[in-house]
Amino acid sequence: DFLNALNEVRPAFGVSEEELESRVQGGVINYAKHIEEIFTEGKLFVQQVKNSERTRLMSVLLSGPIASGKTALAATIALGSDFPFIKLVTAEGMVGMSENARVSYVNRVFEDSYRSPLSVIVVDEIERLIDWVPIGPRFSNTLLQTLMVLFKKQPPKGHRLLILATSSERTMLSRIDMTKSFDAELAVPNVGNIEELDRVLQSVDYFADPNIRVDILQRLQGYTGTEKVNVGIAKILLIAETAKQDVDTVSCFVETLARAIPMD
Amino acid sequence: DFLNALNEVRPAFGVSEEELESRVQGGVINYAKHIEEIFTEGKLFVQQVKNSERTRLMSVLLSGPIASGKTALAATIALGSDFPFIKLVTAEGMVGMSENARVSYVNRVFEDSYRSPLSVIVVDEIERLIDWVPIGPRFSNTLLQTLMVLFKKQPPKGHRLLILATSSERTMLSRIDMTKSFDAELAVPNVGNIEELDRVLQSVDYFADPNIRVDILQRLQGYTGTEKVNVGIAKILLIAETAKQDVDTVSCFVETLARAIPMD
Amino acid sequence: DFLNALNEVRPAFGVSEEELESRVQGGVINYAKHIEEIFTEGKLFVQQVKNSERTRLMSVLLSGPIASGKTALAATIALGSDFPFIKLVTAEGMVGMSENARVSYVNRVFEDSYRSPLSVIVVDEIERLIDWVPIGPRFSNTLLQTLMVLFKKQPPKGHRLLILATSSERTMLSRIDMTKSFDAELAVPNVGNIEELDRVLQSVDYFADPNIRVDILQRLQGYTGTEKVNVGIAKILLIAETAKQDVDTVSCFVETLARAIPMD
Amino acid sequence: DFLNALNEVRPAFGVSEEELESRVQGGVINYAKHIEEIFTEGKLFVQQVKNSERTRLMSVLLSGPIASGKTALAATIALGSDFPFIKLVTAEGMVGMSENARVSYVNRVFEDSYRSPLSVIVVDEIERLIDWVPIGPRFSNTLLQTLMVLFKKQPPKGHRLLILATSSERTMLSRIDMTKSFDAELAVPNVGNIEELDRVLQSVDYFADPNIRVDILQRLQGYTGTEKVNVGIAKILLIAETAKQDVDTVSCFVETLARAIPMD
Amino acid sequence: DFLNALNEVRPAFGVSEEELESRVQGGVINYAKHIEEIFTEGKLFVQQVKNSERTRLMSVLLSGPIASGKTALAATIALGSDFPFIKLVTAEGMVGMSENARVSYVNRVFEDSYRSPLSVIVVDEIERLIDWVPIGPRFSNTLLQTLMVLFKKQPPKGHRLLILATSSERTMLSRIDMTKSFDAELAVPNVGNIEELDRVLQSVDYFADPNIRVDILQRLQGYTGTEKVNVGIAKILLIAETAKQDVDTVSCFVETLARAIPMD
Amino acid sequence: DFLNALNEVRPAFGVSEEELESRVQGGVINYAKHIEEIFTEGKLFVQQVKNSERTRLMSVLLSGPIASGKTALAATIALGSDFPFIKLVTAEGMVGMSENARVSYVNRVFEDSYRSPLSVIVVDEIERLIDWVPIGPRFSNTLLQTLMVLFKKQPPKGHRLLILATSSERTMLSRIDMTKSFDAELAVPNVGNIEELDRVLQSVDYFADPNIRVDILQRLQGYTGTEKVNVGIAKILLIAETAKQDVDTVSCFVETLARAIPMD
Ligand SMILES: Nc1ncnc2c1ncn2[C@@H]1O[C@H](COP(=O)(O)OP(=O)(O)OP(=O)(O)O)[C@@H](O)[C@H]1O
Ligand SMILES: Nc1ncnc2c1ncn2[C@@H]1O[C@H](COP(=O)(O)OP(=O)(O)OP(=O)(O)O)[C@@H](O)[C@H]1O
Ligand SMILES: Nc1ncnc2c1ncn2[C@@H]1O[C@H](COP(=O)(O)OP(=O)(O)OP(=O)(O)O)[C@@H](O)[C@H]1O
Ligand SMILES: Nc1ncnc2c1ncn2[C@@H]1O[C@H](COP(=O)(O)OP(=O)(O)OP(=O)(O)O)[C@@H](O)[C@H]1O
Ligand SMILES: Nc1ncnc2c1ncn2[C@@H]1O[C@H](COP(=O)(O)OP(=O)(O)OP(=O)(O)O)[C@@H](O)[C@H]1O
Ligand SMILES: Nc1ncnc2c1ncn2[C@@H]1O[C@H](COP(=O)(O)OP(=O)(O)OP(=O)(O)O)[C@@H](O)[C@H]1O
Ligand SMILES: [Mg+2]
Ligand SMILES: [Mg+2]
Ligand SMILES: [Mg+2]
Ligand SMILES: [Mg+2]
Ligand SMILES: [Mg+2]
Ligand SMILES: [Mg+2]
Repeated sequence: DFLNALNEVRPAFGVSEEELESRVQGGVINYAKHIEEIFTEGKLFVQQVKNSERTRLMSVLLSGPIASGKTALAATIALGSDFPFIKLVTAEGMVGMSENARVSYVNRVFEDSYRSPLSVIVVDEIERLIDWVPIGPRFSNTLLQTLMVLFKKQPPKGHRLLILATSSERTMLSRIDMTKSFDAELAVPNVGNIEELDRVLQSVDYFADPNIRVDILQRLQGYTGTEKVNVGIAKILLIAETAKQDVDTVSCFVETLARAIPMD
Repeated sequence: DFLNALNEVRPAFGVSEEELESRVQGGVINYAKHIEEIFTEGKLFVQQVKNSERTRLMSVLLSGPIASGKTALAATIALGSDFPFIKLVTAEGMVGMSENARVSYVNRVFEDSYRSPLSVIVVDEIERLIDWVPIGPRFSNTLLQTLMVLFKKQPPKGHRLLILATSSERTMLSRIDMTKSFDAELAVPNVGNIEELDRVLQSVDYFADPNIRVDILQRLQGYTGTEKVNVGIAKILLIAETAKQDVDTVSCFVETLARAIPMD
Repeated sequence: DFLNALNEVRPAFGVSEEELESRVQGGVINYAKHIEEIFTEGKLFVQQVKNSERTRLMSVLLSGPIASGKTALAATIALGSDFPFIKLVTAEGMVGMSENARVSYVNRVFEDSYRSPLSVIVVDEIERLIDWVPIGPRFSNTLLQTLMVLFKKQPPKGHRLLILATSSERTMLSRIDMTKSFDAELAVPNVGNIEELDRVLQSVDYFADPNIRVDILQRLQGYTGTEKVNVGIAKILLIAETAKQDVDTVSCFVETLARAIPMD
Repeated sequence: DFLNALNEVRPAFGVSEEELESRVQGGVINYAKHIEEIFTEGKLFVQQVKNSERTRLMSVLLSGPIASGKTALAATIALGSDFPFIKLVTAEGMVGMSENARVSYVNRVFEDSYRSPLSVIVVDEIERLIDWVPIGPRFSNTLLQTLMVLFKKQPPKGHRLLILATSSERTMLSRIDMTKSFDAELAVPNVGNIEELDRVLQSVDYFADPNIRVDILQRLQGYTGTEKVNVGIAKILLIAETAKQDVDTVSCFVETLARAIPMD
Repeated sequence: DFLNALNEVRPAFGVSEEELESRVQGGVINYAKHIEEIFTEGKLFVQQVKNSERTRLMSVLLSGPIASGKTALAATIALGSDFPFIKLVTAEGMVGMSENARVSYVNRVFEDSYRSPLSVIVVDEIERLIDWVPIGPRFSNTLLQTLMVLFKKQPPKGHRLLILATSSERTMLSRIDMTKSFDAELAVPNVGNIEELDRVLQSVDYFADPNIRVDILQRLQGYTGTEKVNVGIAKILLIAETAKQDVDTVSCFVETLARAIPMD
Repeated sequence: DFLNALNEVRPAFGVSEEELESRVQGGVINYAKHIEEIFTEGKLFVQQVKNSERTRLMSVLLSGPIASGKTALAATIALGSDFPFIKLVTAEGMVGMSENARVSYVNRVFEDSYRSPLSVIVVDEIERLIDWVPIGPRFSNTLLQTLMVLFKKQPPKGHRLLILATSSERTMLSRIDMTKSFDAELAVPNVGNIEELDRVLQSVDYFADPNIRVDILQRLQGYTGTEKVNVGIAKILLIAETAKQDVDTVSCFVETLARAIPMD
């Protein structure tokens, strides 16, 4: 299926697949139905850009809480397309650049993509690219306007582009009318409950033993008094690593995760 | 009639018709009475600029929701004039330019037009040209003031200019007193109801079969419980393309469109 | 009388009368008593600057709604003086200039005027000169302060200056205490009622027939249910031109004007 | 007395008395007791700076409504001192200068004064020097801070300085704590009532006849229904000049002044 | 005691004692118990910086109303230390400098101090150094942050620094959390009541006669109806100087001081 | 244990341990259970970065009131790791730098760390690094965004980085969603009560005698009427030093500390 497609390597030019692959190094755990659905829809958009007569450009927003797996999923969909041009646009690649330099940089990535017949661009963490901060609020309107224009700019004839953008600030994007700029949206939720957590922990080697997992889930519910989890998968995996350093791995994991679970 | 006039090609100098034509590539579907009325009024303004002794300049605003077809309609009216100078001013053409460069660019297009006896300039998406963002709110006042002055600046004697501007932010334009700067306004609404939607779908080849359309419209009303649609024509045509990639095109179309229909 | 005085041409140096004359090309229609009064007062100020021992400088504000005829009236008063230096300061003449360049430009016009024994400067649309926009609100404080200082700066001995400024944003000017900077004010109202409208239409050739006008006024009142009009003379004359392009000129005029009349 | 002292001319170096004298060209009318009191206090401050061991610097604020005569009174006090260095700092002298240039200019005037044993500097219209506008509000904080520091900066030993500043925005100065920076304050009110107006008109030659003045004052009270006037002396004198151009001078004066009197 | 210590002169390098001494030229009047207490605490801080193993840096804030004597007291404490490096940082020394130049200037003073084994820096009127104005409010955040960092920056080993800062805007400093940056605070109040005023006037030669003072204090209480004074010592001494110019010194002093006493 | 580990010196290259050591010169007093816990958790994070397959980057926030010991604790943890690259990023090191220079500086420290296999960076006082001031509020968004990106930027393969950041403005960090950027948090509280204060004073030589401490604590409670202290350890040690200069050390200590204890 789609996930397996990742293993098929493609001849590359102008591709920054390497960096994208580093975003899914830990692999993607199929811990809930919505994970599969996101891949199904992603595949549909890939096909539409590839085949549709009318649709030469498509922009898709993956939004969800911090650490919910947005970047990993966008990277997986991008790598799963068989497009010759795949690029990642990220704030990390622009530290220390002036606003103008950043606009040029982003613009150049898009200009490059217009020269390939089929392209995917992953635009990661829009809020960071536009220097968003809720106090004020402040942000680089120059970067924001550049993105809004590029997200709607048709590639020249014979060229096709899929844009996968991620953000954990959907409310802000909606206030600035940017959500309307996207042709489609994909929601990426947190790990929601005990059952989904169990499926995540199955993939963590030192929690492989089902008895340990039963113990963990029971103690966790003892702390929180609920079946809800609502923590990002990245956070859960990090806490598991911290716990691994402790002598009493299970206790450390349960206590730290319990503190991370939001109270209502 | 007016729509057919598009096929008559004109000798061109300084004309960027090509780009304008790309905005109506998909064609214009005559799905409601207001479409014809917009063209009738547009024709009247073209005649006034061409013939009236007193009126050497006219500025018209096409406003309506996102994806309602503003750009396509403005482009069609512009191309339907038989004016020798036709230009499109758009944010896409100015990505990465400094504010000053953009003012110069816009100013130059208008200066060029003053050299032609008869000109049309389509100023697309004013909100994007002025870097509008509702948070703050922020915008380039320099660009805004430049546009407001140019929209009222009489061409020299013996020269005539029709300005067709589009915007999906009419409320903002009205707050900044810009609507009063226009000599006339044309409203471009969404596809409003089931009946109008039916006429749109007639033009989509894989929904040509009336039975399929009856099925679609019934299932859609089943989902939404109303005859209202209120979705932009561009969005409807995009959803049709996405659905085409799916095995069950009709279901995919109905479900996706239903999600796009706003609740009251 | 004063209006006829326009026909007397004067020897000119440093005069931009030509551009000012283009602002009253359509002529001035004496459609109401206040038009004559504005000219009487204007003449008084011209005389005061020319003759009074104490008054070497006078600044007058013409304010009123958009399209009410402010620029045409200011231009007419300026041209009706027999001053050797007459200049128009307008945002159109400064498109694309930097703020500093604009301050220099305005300052130079005033410096030039100080070299002529008798000068009139028409400062058109203050709100546009200072880049005023009600959102924020924003404006160029540098331009504003320059104007406020120049409006009060005495010309050197033996030199005299009349400043005629126009604005449709009197409320704003009053909020920034600028109205107090003017030595006198003239209000320029809209065409107020059916009677005044009738006198305007008398001057439009294709509405010369009194029967046609009776028909127009009756149908208009049928639409609006009131004798009030409250539309700017420039707008009325524009609508008349649009209507002229239509087969049914009268209906088109009445309907478009009716839409332009504000509801209370 | 003090007013007469103006006639005594002093040997000057670095003095811009000429410009200051142009501010009191029309002369100062002794129309009320407070005028004399202002001069008495002004004289006291002049003496203190000249003689006091402790007081080498003194800053005085003259504040009052627009056109109340602040500049004329400050100029008169400055010219009435017998100090060898007298300078006027005014926004008119800095039109078109950058903020930095203006700071340097102001600073240089003060530096120059420190070289004279006895100096007076008239700082006219603080609100204009700092580009004050109540919308926002906005102003040049750089200019403001420069003034606040210079107003408190002691001249070097053996040098003495009197600063006379004027402003019609006392409320603003008080909000920014600038009033506290002054060592003393003098209030300059409007012409308050019929009686004071009468004494002003005595000095206007064409109202010399007492019967005319009685007529004017009666008719004015007929219009306003009150003995209050509350109009600046400069405005009253200007209206008198306008009226002089009219055939019916008295009516024109009374009507225009009546419109200028504020309603409560 | 401490006050006498001022007379002992120290060998100086890099010292700007001269300017500091000009701030206490008028001398310090020991008019209340808190004056002595301020000197006692000041002496303690001087000793701590000089002797304590742990404390190589100490920053002290002297705050109080305008004209209460903050600068004179800080200067006296600084001069009373026997530290070889004594500097005054003041806005007067930086008029006309750019923000960057001012940061460099302040930074250089501190860098210089780090080269002396024992240093005192008087940072006078923080609100003026940071261009504070309560409208907005506005201030130079760059200067503010520079001061906040320098106030906490440890000198290198073997070097010791005492910082004495003054401000009349304690509320503002507290709102920006700057008061917490200081290691200690000293409050400098106004002359509070009749009794303290009496002790101040004892030092003014022309009020030396006790009978005159009794007269003054009685008449003052007659005006104000209270024993409270609450006026800064600098203001009181200035008013005494103004009164000295008047024929009736006592009346002038009492009336002017009465106007300066705040009503509750 | 961990504290002792500080004595083991490591071979260093590119290490600024010296400056970090100056932050814990006074030593760390183990005055409460939470001090030990902070070290235990700190050690866990050091191990995770060193050993975990998945975790090549970890960012930890130490937050607490001013003077509570955040910097000393972060420095101790950093020095207690056996990582070859240890750096301190602090506002003191960047006084007078432009915003751009500061971004470059910070970025360079991180780039350097990516070249070492194992690195710790202490980012001290985030609020000062970003020029935070609560009035406005204002801050350098450029610095803030740079930090937010660098705190999440993975070092290249084979390289590992632990970030220890301190701040006394946790509320602000939470408002700008920065707390979510950290992988873990450590709270550093004030000295809470009499009992903890007693353990602090045991380490101060001149309060070594238990009877003196009993006396101090009793008198303190006499002043405050409570067992609560809630003062930062740095402040307590400073007050002890001031008291040492006084003849009556105990009284001075008790009175000054009592004033520093917050009232509820
Ligand atoms: N089903 C899954 N979906 C997403 N990520 C997964 C999944 N299973 C495992 N992962 C792992 O979880 C981590 C998700 O982190 P990722 O950085 O993508 O989250 P994010 O939402 O982009 O976080 P942030 O809000 O910080 O940008 C990755 O390491 C990824 O390999
Ligand atoms: N009657 C119609 N009016 C307008 N567009 C139509 C019509 N029929 C079909 N179309 C097609 O619908 C699309 C309208 O998209 P267009 O970009 O003009 O919308 P828009 O309102 O300008 O959108 P946006 O708000 O994003 O600028 C075009 O592809 C056009 O070919
Ligand atoms: N009595 C009149 N007063 C003024 N203008 C008149 C009159 N009669 C006819 N006109 C014509 O009406 C038009 C007035 O337009 P004008 O540009 O002066 O209005 P305006 O108030 O300056 O508009 P805007 O607010 O757009 O600046 C001119 O074309 C002028 O020739
Ligand atoms: N008693 C008086 N006091 C002041 N000015 C007087 C007096 N009598 C006559 N004048 C005249 O009145 C005018 C006062 O104008 P002036 O410019 O000084 O007023 P102002 O308060 O400074 O006005 P603005 O607020 O515009 O700066 C001058 O022409 C002056 O000659
Ligand atoms: N006990 C005293 N304390 C302080 N100043 C005194 C005292 N006795 C006399 N003085 C004199 O009073 C004046 C105090 O003025 P100073 O400039 O120090 O006040 P300030 O509070 O710094 O004022 P500002 O708020 O304007 O900065 C000086 O001239 C000083 O010589
Ligand atoms: N248990 C402890 N924890 C922290 N610091 C301690 C401890 N015991 C003693 N100290 C000493 O207390 C002082 C703590 O000051 P430090 O500068 O670390 O506080 P801080 O919270 O960083 O202050 P600031 O908010 O000003 O940055 C240091 O001098 C340190 O040597
Ligand atoms: Mg991500
Ligand atoms: Mg469009
Ligand atoms: Mg006009
Ligand atoms: Mg004045
Ligand atoms: Mg002071
Ligand atoms: Mg610290």
